[in-house]
Amino acid sequence: MNRLGDKIALTTFGESHGVAMGGILDGMPAGIHLDMNEVQEMIDRRRTGRSLLTSQRKESDIPEILSGVTKDGVTLGTPIGFIFRNSDARSKDYSDLECLYRPNHADYCYDKKYGIRDARGGGRASARETVNWVMGGALVMQWLKTLGIEIEARVTQIGKSGYEDPFKSVRETPENPVFIVDESIEEKMLSEVESARMACDSIGGRVSCIIRGLPAGLGEPVFGKLQAKLAEAVMSLNAAKGFEYGLGDIAASMRGSESLDLFNPGFQPMPLQTNKNGGILGGISNGMPIYFSVYLKPTPTISRELPMPDSSGKIDIIRVEGRHDPCVALRAPVIVESLAAITIANLLK
Amino acid sequence: MNRLGDKIALTTFGESHGVAMGGILDGMPAGIHLDMNEVQEMIDRRRTGRSLLTSQRKESDIPEILSGVTKDGVTLGTPIGFIFRNSDARSKDYSDLECLYRPNHADYCYDKKYGIRDARGGGRASARETVNWVMGGALVMQWLKTLGIEIEARVTQIGKSGYEDPFKSVRETPENPVFIVDESIEEKMLSEVESARMACDSIGGRVSCIIRGLPAGLGEPVFGKLQAKLAEAVMSLNAAKGFEYGLGDIAASMRGSESLDLFNPGFQPMPLQTNKNGGILGGISNGMPIYFSVYLKPTPTISRELPMPDSSGKIDIIRVEGRHDPCVALRAPVIVESLAAITIANLLK
Amino acid sequence: MNRLGDKIALTTFGESHGVAMGGILDGMPAGIHLDMNEVQEMIDRRRTGRSLLTSQRKESDIPEILSGVTKDGVTLGTPIGFIFRNSDARSKDYSDLECLYRPNHADYCYDKKYGIRDARGGGRASARETVNWVMGGALVMQWLKTLGIEIEARVTQIGKSGYEDPFKSVRETPENPVFIVDESIEEKMLSEVESARMACDSIGGRVSCIIRGLPAGLGEPVFGKLQAKLAEAVMSLNAAKGFEYGLGDIAASMRGSESLDLFNPGFQPMPLQTNKNGGILGGISNGMPIYFSVYLKPTPTISRELPMPDSSGKIDIIRVEGRHDPCVALRAPVIVESLAAITIANLLK
Amino acid sequence: MNRLGDKIALTTFGESHGVAMGGILDGMPAGIHLDMNEVQEMIDRRRTGRSLLTSQRKESDIPEILSGVTKDGVTLGTPIGFIFRNSDARSKDYSDLECLYRPNHADYCYDKKYGIRDARGGGRASARETVNWVMGGALVMQWLKTLGIEIEARVTQIGKSGYEDPFKSVRETPENPVFIVDESIEEKMLSEVESARMACDSIGGRVSCIIRGLPAGLGEPVFGKLQAKLAEAVMSLNAAKGFEYGLGDIAASMRGSESLDLFNPGFQPMPLQTNKNGGILGGISNGMPIYFSVYLKPTPTISRELPMPDSSGKIDIIRVEGRHDPCVALRAPVIVESLAAITIANLLK
Repeated sequence: MNRLGDKIALTTFGESHGVAMGGILDGMPAGIHLDMNEVQEMIDRRRTGRSLLTSQRKESDIPEILSGVTKDGVTLGTPIGFIFRNSDARSKDYSDLECLYRPNHADYCYDKKYGIRDARGGGRASARETVNWVMGGALVMQWLKTLGIEIEARVTQIGKSGYEDPFKSVRETPENPVFIVDESIEEKMLSEVESARMACDSIGGRVSCIIRGLPAGLGEPVFGKLQAKLAEAVMSLNAAKGFEYGLGDIAASMRGSESLDLFNPGFQPMPLQTNKNGGILGGISNGMPIYFSVYLKPTPTISRELPMPDSSGKIDIIRVEGRHDPCVALRAPVIVESLAAITIANLLK
Repeated sequence: MNRLGDKIALTTFGESHGVAMGGILDGMPAGIHLDMNEVQEMIDRRRTGRSLLTSQRKESDIPEILSGVTKDGVTLGTPIGFIFRNSDARSKDYSDLECLYRPNHADYCYDKKYGIRDARGGGRASARETVNWVMGGALVMQWLKTLGIEIEARVTQIGKSGYEDPFKSVRETPENPVFIVDESIEEKMLSEVESARMACDSIGGRVSCIIRGLPAGLGEPVFGKLQAKLAEAVMSLNAAKGFEYGLGDIAASMRGSESLDLFNPGFQPMPLQTNKNGGILGGISNGMPIYFSVYLKPTPTISRELPMPDSSGKIDIIRVEGRHDPCVALRAPVIVESLAAITIANLLK
Repeated sequence: MNRLGDKIALTTFGESHGVAMGGILDGMPAGIHLDMNEVQEMIDRRRTGRSLLTSQRKESDIPEILSGVTKDGVTLGTPIGFIFRNSDARSKDYSDLECLYRPNHADYCYDKKYGIRDARGGGRASARETVNWVMGGALVMQWLKTLGIEIEARVTQIGKSGYEDPFKSVRETPENPVFIVDESIEEKMLSEVESARMACDSIGGRVSCIIRGLPAGLGEPVFGKLQAKLAEAVMSLNAAKGFEYGLGDIAASMRGSESLDLFNPGFQPMPLQTNKNGGILGGISNGMPIYFSVYLKPTPTISRELPMPDSSGKIDIIRVEGRHDPCVALRAPVIVESLAAITIANLLK
Repeated sequence: MNRLGDKIALTTFGESHGVAMGGILDGMPAGIHLDMNEVQEMIDRRRTGRSLLTSQRKESDIPEILSGVTKDGVTLGTPIGFIFRNSDARSKDYSDLECLYRPNHADYCYDKKYGIRDARGGGRASARETVNWVMGGALVMQWLKTLGIEIEARVTQIGKSGYEDPFKSVRETPENPVFIVDESIEEKMLSEVESARMACDSIGGRVSCIIRGLPAGLGEPVFGKLQAKLAEAVMSLNAAKGFEYGLGDIAASMRGSESLDLFNPGFQPMPLQTNKNGGILGGISNGMPIYFSVYLKPTPTISRELPMPDSSGKIDIIRVEGRHDPCVALRAPVIVESLAAITIANLLK
């Protein structure tokens, strides 16, 4: 189904080259004063990624809100319907592809599942869908902010370059408000994108996210653990191949004595001295910042000739035109923030 | 909530040192002939892990089935209720701990969430809960087998030892029915456990899982992606810190041209020549084997003196007795198989 | 929440005098050829009710479909987003009411629940919302028709006039395709509306519905019974005060020996000789037509001076203008059909 | 599925003549001190109905609580598992029936749905299942009581005898704490049961229920209306053929001017002067008592020879022995209270 969340549910629709993208955010608390400039800012962060390094498709991406909000921008508690018209869809780029299955794309799977698909622009499987997610996340974030909750994601690896430990500052000094930013590393990451693009290729990456201000006691202890809901949400990204939180995968090679977070006496200034568990124990938040990473594969579409079968299995050699990001990670942080926001909001309501 | 799955729903209950563990498996198809020996075998695999290297708690772990099955062991389509009596609960091991919060355990979080908790044996947060999961998974597996679906998980890393690529055989020769097993690696992994145990310490690990025989077309394309549901299920393991599928985290450092699975002409003998995407594209199965790994942190309880606060924040130095696995990964494969089975079954119904 | 159904889920939004009404129909099977003329016909049946006797608000009520359907009108299996622009909203009729609570309306309750409400035209509580339901129902009906399922509802009582037993023909001769229609009764029903309207009053009514062509075996046996899901759906009508199926309330005054449906030998031509149980036993369809009725209260708004409090409890005497149906039952049949269609579709998928 | 409620979910299992009935109540708030005597009292009310007039099956019906509660009877917030062993199952009464379909029972429908069924005692379709509902309801009621919420149901009609308006006192004097009880009417109702029993027949009835102490603002405005959730829950009773709330079906024959509840100035002492809407407007509670009725058909099993087909459609004449209530309404009030309690609890959490 096309829904994320139960108590605060984002239901979405839209094919990449159809009439419009859109969704319904249901369950938003009443009385929240929306700052639509901030909402638009989040949408714009997704749209542009970083200048020339992202897809050249131009969508204004200004949502039309159809319900659930007063003229003055205050939520009514009723469902918020919204749409984004698709204006710059160049479907002819895809006309050759109507019958072909692109490698590493969902084309073949859609045909197996539905027996029919909208091939233009990837249809429903397009990353364009994520504009709906950011809209939902941006609205929810307006509420979370009133509760003192902040969610911040960054690209922390591209290709073979990146921060070895993107959360180092958080772990060691939990009150530190920002990621450690090393300009030389950032430059290396961008040059990975540029060199992939020059090679008519694409490149993978990692996005890391911190959630601050969450009270202890959120999450369900058995199924529906906080980390399980975060993983489920974040693995909705088409490119996501891996998820980790806290120490993450490295924990598998550690000893118990190395992985403990000891308590602070009186639980002050924070409950724990360190935060190796990433703010979650037993599926429930422990009052420390939550941090997790998602690993993204390279954009599947690359500007090279590739063999592609039609539905009968006959293979043609095709070079896909279209406009594609060489690195999906660049646009992903605001999407990850949005997915995290909706997940967290569902625990709070 | 304490439920996994919607169409085939496993709802569970039970505190580690309470009267019984148990659950209800609802939605199981009617007319499945249960081989209770096979069910018990799965339960036994969880119980023993590997001989001396796992917890010395002795539970017979023989389920009592209370409903949903005829005298002849055929499912009725009605909910299957089952219980496991807790017979060997040594709660006195925990009497000192009733008011203390153990590090890396959920104690503190339970108190924050509920204001009350059953401290004996970890209560609901105990790994004993997983006996319910294996029971549910084992029952579901009886159905999946009739559909030709096989699910197999193995420990593929303990501490710093393990297979670099646990799925190598699958990727290169998809028809290969088994994991590559290298006895020298297995020995190294076990010696990691042994040396951790001798040091009164514990050790982390990784479990890898393959699902074979799944038809193409399963999974929801946007939210509820197959990998998202697998991640959600597997991250329910208390120790799980990371999840990856297909190429996994390595994909983040790769180029697009390296990560493509090309199609076989005529989709024969398998749809794809390689399986870097782990059997899933766009959230939907593509007819190739599905494979994923889960990274597990070391057992939090270690037999050492550790500082632990009471609810006022006053810290005592305590050595927890109890009986604990030095490495949770050893028992985890059958639990991972069970979680995967329930996830898959929900897509099939 | 604003969602009906799980497997085929209609989620809706829209305030009566907001920008637009709309919704998302998720889970519709792929490959259904939509006859948009038939869809529009259902929408038009709701709009007009019966000529002069219904509200004089003029909405063109032509949906814009935004996704989920090919250019040729074939469903893709992806969510179908749709909107109805609100064009003829005369909010000034309501300006006096912004702070007042109308009797028998939801105004007071919305303020208690949300602390804020859109007073114009009743906001989200307006019957205008039902245009979304009919759109969803009409789309689903396109699928049900391909399965040979027919759903037909009629007004069978208005005020004190109506059919004593609206399903007589069904009960006695199950193969009879139509309701007994008695023109003299229909005239009496309409004159009840007319006389209420002349008295600046409104009048209640009953709508009865038959579902034909449903196979035996649908419905959940314990919770989620077929009749329970129908009751839940139909009681979503703001005016609904009662629901009954089969013999209905009369069953309470009957003896067991009077209420039995006996089987036909060989289950031919229908499984049962009579259909007192209205096609459902134990929550599961039995292969006979399903029939049920819903009892609707009179329109709460009447063109008379009435005492209305503001939020402080101070009472004013106000005459509400607006445009209102004297009898909600007249427009209700197609809405009941739509709710029934969505309910049935969820059992079939 | 076998679950009622989302936030406070009762999931049940059990065949009438199987090993045990049971269930899991998940989502119960932590820290509720359970008075198990009161819980048992509710269970006992269901068991006995009224002395000789109910089924002679003897079950001790003492639940075993397996989890979720401390030794001192305080809820932990974790799922409460419970079972009732089936001790007095006389399955031989049913041996003749294994292959036959009883009229007005679910036998035929179960076979159509599942292709297999447990014929003994009606299996899962037996009214014995309701012991699970009362257990769940009784536990939930312990919480509701702490919030000042009371739920009370009574038999208000049996056959052709009963109260014309069971809620008269409530409507006219909302503060009146009890139903009007007229001993002469009660005697007439019981004589209806007795005379049905003497005639080897059964008799239908009506149960009416009042919920007091509910705050205004509960319920969802569009789908998930308070009355819709009550209707769904109550229509889960196998015998239920109709549901109404407030004025109920009579509203269909009334004019708007007759059906209005006018506000009290200052909303004191109650928000409304009358309560024709039964405490709900627009799907949301308005702070007045909620009242509704359910109409129950006669027990389908009567001690007479009846024609019954086997699965091939060949008809035999059989007299069912077994032990059955001549009037299901007698035991139903506590079951209705339980279903209402679970429904209300879900709105409060």
